[in-house]
Amino acid sequence: MKKFQIVGIGNAMVDVLTRGDELFLAEAGIEKGIMQLIDMDRAVSLYGAIGPAKEISGGSAANTIAGIAHLGGRTAYVGKVKDDQLGAIFAHDLRAQGAVYETSLAPKSAEQETGRCIVIVTPDGERSMNTYLGVTEFLEPSDIDPAMMADAEWIYLEGYRFDGPDSHAAFAKAINACKGHGGRVSLTLSDPFCVERHRDAFRMMIREDVDLLFCNRAEILSMYRTDDFEAALAAAALEVEIVACTDSERGAHILSRGKRWDVPAIPTDIVDATGAGDLFAGAFLWGLTNGHDLETCGRMGCVAASEVISHIGARPEANLKALFAKHGLL
Amino acid sequence: MKKFQIVGIGNAMVDVLTRGDELFLAEAGIEKGIMQLIDMDRAVSLYGAIGPAKEISGGSAANTIAGIAHLGGRTAYVGKVKDDQLGAIFAHDLRAQGAVYETSLAPKSAEQETGRCIVIVTPDGERSMNTYLGVTEFLEPSDIDPAMMADAEWIYLEGYRFDGPDSHAAFAKAINACKGHGGRVSLTLSDPFCVERHRDAFRMMIREDVDLLFCNRAEILSMYRTDDFEAALAAAALEVEIVACTDSERGAHILSRGKRWDVPAIPTDIVDATGAGDLFAGAFLWGLTNGHDLETCGRMGCVAASEVISHIGARPEANLKALFAKHGLL
Repeated sequence: MKKFQIVGIGNAMVDVLTRGDELFLAEAGIEKGIMQLIDMDRAVSLYGAIGPAKEISGGSAANTIAGIAHLGGRTAYVGKVKDDQLGAIFAHDLRAQGAVYETSLAPKSAEQETGRCIVIVTPDGERSMNTYLGVTEFLEPSDIDPAMMADAEWIYLEGYRFDGPDSHAAFAKAINACKGHGGRVSLTLSDPFCVERHRDAFRMMIREDVDLLFCNRAEILSMYRTDDFEAALAAAALEVEIVACTDSERGAHILSRGKRWDVPAIPTDIVDATGAGDLFAGAFLWGLTNGHDLETCGRMGCVAASEVISHIGARPEANLKALFAKHGLL
Repeated sequence: MKKFQIVGIGNAMVDVLTRGDELFLAEAGIEKGIMQLIDMDRAVSLYGAIGPAKEISGGSAANTIAGIAHLGGRTAYVGKVKDDQLGAIFAHDLRAQGAVYETSLAPKSAEQETGRCIVIVTPDGERSMNTYLGVTEFLEPSDIDPAMMADAEWIYLEGYRFDGPDSHAAFAKAINACKGHGGRVSLTLSDPFCVERHRDAFRMMIREDVDLLFCNRAEILSMYRTDDFEAALAAAALEVEIVACTDSERGAHILSRGKRWDVPAIPTDIVDATGAGDLFAGAFLWGLTNGHDLETCGRMGCVAASEVISHIGARPEANLKALFAKHGLL
């Protein structure tokens, strides 16, 4: 048995969560519903403009790994924080959830700080993310421990982590170590604009290395440069063994080896949509590595997503296993 | 018109909020429902033992001032943080709420960090607080600007702030400047064990300087060393002009110049009791300085307290003025 069911690699971030309306988004020049990269100056000025906030550990793949750890999965996370207070908070929250947290820690003298994401949650629960990457932008091959990747059944790569000078090489090192020891590779496209920035690199990785692709409707349309959702799903299904595509209130579509399952969303009052896709992936991967069929994995994903959007913060608060049991999935 | 309706002085803290059960409290040696002071070593070891947490600006008087600012009151806060990430979060959240935040900032080289309070919220919503004071312990007379105190209708003093070598002198300086210019003094007893530690100093201040005393049942019993709640209320009412004593699900008792009003609590599902007393005081002081009668002030206090215990975090999230209007108080 491998030591880890899933090892995730992503941008280590602390979320700075605040509420704001559409007018605020317009005045602050924030595009609604997507992730936009900002520099330190913009982070400072935007932080000065927002209302009171809550700081909660986030980061897309880290949320996924926290979900897997919450479910009792054997899991680890690789990301980069600085030796500062926010870095300590990020590392604490992953370890406290039961995940192994592995990274080189940027020293106190580093010019950049621990990454943070200023999330404006509008009254409809939608999140508009403003990401200052900080030290997490500089994750590089030397931060990847090949032995850890070799000891993983699956690795989970965060699309957002394609931003940064050495991240492609870091991912390549992780993939080689994992695949070289019989492990498999999953990738999340993360965000339609992230796909815009890295379409060719994503495409090459999907064709050559990815066994399981996570995405949502907007991301897969951007990936395959089409307005035809069914065509995009079909194209993806030809390139990877499993496609798991979330589709908001329409649930999720799972495609694999010529078969397809459309699983329903769980109706929920949306308080904060942050983390829905992340927790879908976490529950799906946990289900998959515990021997559940793909349809059940998809249903577990939808249940986990519905839990995380019912409260502020992108990590589970209710007992997900109990929710799976309630929905007849365990 | 004075520049400020209320200026608060207290322990500047960031709350580290996490959930834990009675067993965890027992194993970690935490006394339930009270505030216990811890040193940096204990803060580090306890933080390592708790589950994932959320960081939210807190501090008792700071919560009160945030509530007043939320209501549109002219208000300021004096406390001490370090020039670190948690200090920046604390200052941001008060200013973003509309309060003036004034303090000497301890430099990056200071040995102590910004204070934090590890709050374990049990399933019954009760909070057990573990406070590492950090730099806020060292608030001293030079941190008090007499001109600001002179320009305040009321000052609001946090009982917790009696812990620390120079805090009594700092309070005396604030009281003298305020009273010397026709201002008035309110005090909260904060916690029954805090009363134990400082009973004589509290008693002297109550008799000589305090015009309005905030407390709860346990605190006033400790203050007057009695098991007889009515006797304690009567004793306090002889010493200060206004006594505002909260009493959990029994609401609050307001006593002044021989009159008494018992105002009901607003029934609420308790998610996190952190901040109930703080927001009661904030709403009460806002009402008082806006010309409302004492009974209405007490009712406003109970409405504000019910809002803040209905969610995680000790500062208001719903519109308090709208809630006051809904209850016929505006």
